[in-house]
Amino acid sequence: MRVDEISNGSAVTSKADRKAQLAPLDASKLRITLTDALRVVPPPEEQVVGKSYTDHMLIVSYDPQTGWSDPEIKPYGPLSIDPACSVLQYGTSCFEGMKAYLGPDGKARLFRPDENMARLKRSAERLALPPFDEQEVLKLVKKLITVETRWIPALRGYSLYIRPTIIGTRPSIGVCASDHAILYVILSPTGPYFRTGSEGISLLALGDPVRSWPGGTGGHKVAPNYSPGFKSLEYAKELGYQQVLWLIGGKITEAGVMNFFAVLEREDGDLDVITPPLNGTILPGVTRASVIALAAAHPSRIILPGIPNTVCLHVHERELTMSNLTLWSAQGRLLEVFVSGTAAVVGGIGRIGFEGEDLLLHPYKDGRGPVARALFEYITDIQEGRTEWENWGVVCE
Amino acid sequence: MRVDEISNGSAVTSKADRKAQLAPLDASKLRITLTDALRVVPPPEEQVVGKSYTDHMLIVSYDPQTGWSDPEIKPYGPLSIDPACSVLQYGTSCFEGMKAYLGPDGKARLFRPDENMARLKRSAERLALPPFDEQEVLKLVKKLITVETRWIPALRGYSLYIRPTIIGTRPSIGVCASDHAILYVILSPTGPYFRTGSEGISLLALGDPVRSWPGGTGGHKVAPNYSPGFKSLEYAKELGYQQVLWLIGGKITEAGVMNFFAVLEREDGDLDVITPPLNGTILPGVTRASVIALAAAHPSRIILPGIPNTVCLHVHERELTMSNLTLWSAQGRLLEVFVSGTAAVVGGIGRIGFEGEDLLLHPYKDGRGPVARALFEYITDIQEGRTEWENWGVVCE
Repeated sequence: MRVDEISNGSAVTSKADRKAQLAPLDASKLRITLTDALRVVPPPEEQVVGKSYTDHMLIVSYDPQTGWSDPEIKPYGPLSIDPACSVLQYGTSCFEGMKAYLGPDGKARLFRPDENMARLKRSAERLALPPFDEQEVLKLVKKLITVETRWIPALRGYSLYIRPTIIGTRPSIGVCASDHAILYVILSPTGPYFRTGSEGISLLALGDPVRSWPGGTGGHKVAPNYSPGFKSLEYAKELGYQQVLWLIGGKITEAGVMNFFAVLEREDGDLDVITPPLNGTILPGVTRASVIALAAAHPSRIILPGIPNTVCLHVHERELTMSNLTLWSAQGRLLEVFVSGTAAVVGGIGRIGFEGEDLLLHPYKDGRGPVARALFEYITDIQEGRTEWENWGVVCE
Repeated sequence: MRVDEISNGSAVTSKADRKAQLAPLDASKLRITLTDALRVVPPPEEQVVGKSYTDHMLIVSYDPQTGWSDPEIKPYGPLSIDPACSVLQYGTSCFEGMKAYLGPDGKARLFRPDENMARLKRSAERLALPPFDEQEVLKLVKKLITVETRWIPALRGYSLYIRPTIIGTRPSIGVCASDHAILYVILSPTGPYFRTGSEGISLLALGDPVRSWPGGTGGHKVAPNYSPGFKSLEYAKELGYQQVLWLIGGKITEAGVMNFFAVLEREDGDLDVITPPLNGTILPGVTRASVIALAAAHPSRIILPGIPNTVCLHVHERELTMSNLTLWSAQGRLLEVFVSGTAAVVGGIGRIGFEGEDLLLHPYKDGRGPVARALFEYITDIQEGRTEWENWGVVCE
């Protein structure tokens, strides 16, 4: 018996009873309705994330009277949404970005999916969306992937992007938490995120508008973090940059929708790998955590390809400014700057525009410096099933 | 010819030509399809904003190839939305809150609708949504109101709440501006927003999480401002408060979805009316602007009911903290605290919880002190057509 039951007596118990009677999200109740008109999978060169979607989607809804519905895999199609719904009026939505890869054994693999599920749960809680067992969601994601395995491109660097989404569907403009929800998962085949040449990715550093703030939602993967940045992205593109590098009070936070890293050469021959700390303004990226773990494991536990085993990578989570980068670059110490994210995995930065000047970084083949390239190769080896590491690759069976 | 056309030549000109060929939002192209099953208007005691909606809605959509569609008034019903759409994934939505009132002449009236239309346009621009002529939207709102006039309650303090909404419907999870949109308007009959007794409205002051921040979207009426506040609202309600008073770095910003005012007694017998400044973290409320204008007009141009004509109201837009309020209250100078917004018009605050203590304010009949009551009565007299002032009341014809 919990403390609130002891202190508040039967009223609380009956509320708890009522909550206990609500149906939980239960993957074992999945119903599958397959389409009778399978689409042609587009050729690899047309596989850009968000351009096409697979034949089926997963959907399950929450009602405050009955709880979670039976999950359903059914043909991809539009949702019917009341115009007064919370998601349309108040941005009540959170999501995840994951990928399924085809291994050499022909099996579909996910990359650290427990991390995405845990973050999805935290994001839903941040927006006061209904609770669920995230392991049940993972079972459903795996099932959807097995139904759609033919959509995973059998090419290095290609994968099936997975977008689990939870939207608040309370059909009222009253400004309060949504007690109705729909959880759905859609899939989009995708190739390399940035098809850049040796020039790398270009960023425009902007301090106003700002993307997130201490006490805001920047540390959660929620819809309200994104549309407020569209105007800045359009502005960056007009000036010839690919993404925005978001600053707060001069401090670097994220690059577009990716985490940011700088690599410095040290006098002792080792390398410092520096990334902004998780202070609530930065998304705790799964790829970011993987980069940090793998960099720290070299050379004691793994050897990253192309990085000598005499070189240690010292990871620092600390504040970074554009002034830091400019100074280090002028001193010849800035080996490389890179970004990490599910879509891009690890991508090299070529230049950063800031206050009318471009900070030009070392040019490298495909834009990635030695550390970014080593991490990109090691992580994609795990993702695509060529290497095993701490059970990060999870087969869908 | 603009500078970019001179410098960039025909490519830009043809882009401008293409944009010029896109259909503008044109109210004259309105098509009306009436329902053949009119619903029963609920009795006044059930008229709570967001509980019921009228028989019809207005809808018009934007396509990047063709521009704005012909507007349509049609039976209220769900929207069909692709699961990858921008609004569901990235919170790409903005809206307005307006009301239609039934005047003594039986005609429907709007209150300063040009202000709402201008703000809707600014909000859409902030989220990089497609452009439109806001006067055309106003014509359509008026037309919808005339179709639905029977839904406006003929009771003092009752009205028809109007919710114009623009959602981004680009059907792709690619993180960029939405080049597709739907603009729609729904209506909900409503009575008094807070049915409080003499205790007034209760607020819980919270500094973390924060609602908005410098360089964020707090100064625009966009969906991403709202769902991140739901958890704090739930927390406030659990502790017995009705709304959250949002702080940033100790400074008062907004109360729930309303602007905040404090009234101080001065030694010369006049009153200071203090409200936080519009610094981008606070919504520039239409009712807020009206409160400021009417307070400043007393007693030189109007006499607010119940306020002696020997008393001047000195309006100050300046920073306010909870410490200010606590000190002024202890000094016996804090006459009243009130909030303003379209839904509540002007509402009196009874108590404010902060760091475990309650700041108890003067009790007043229905919670409103003399200034709040005077402004509430004067504004509702204009809204409901009993008084004329600077063309703020606009008849729908």
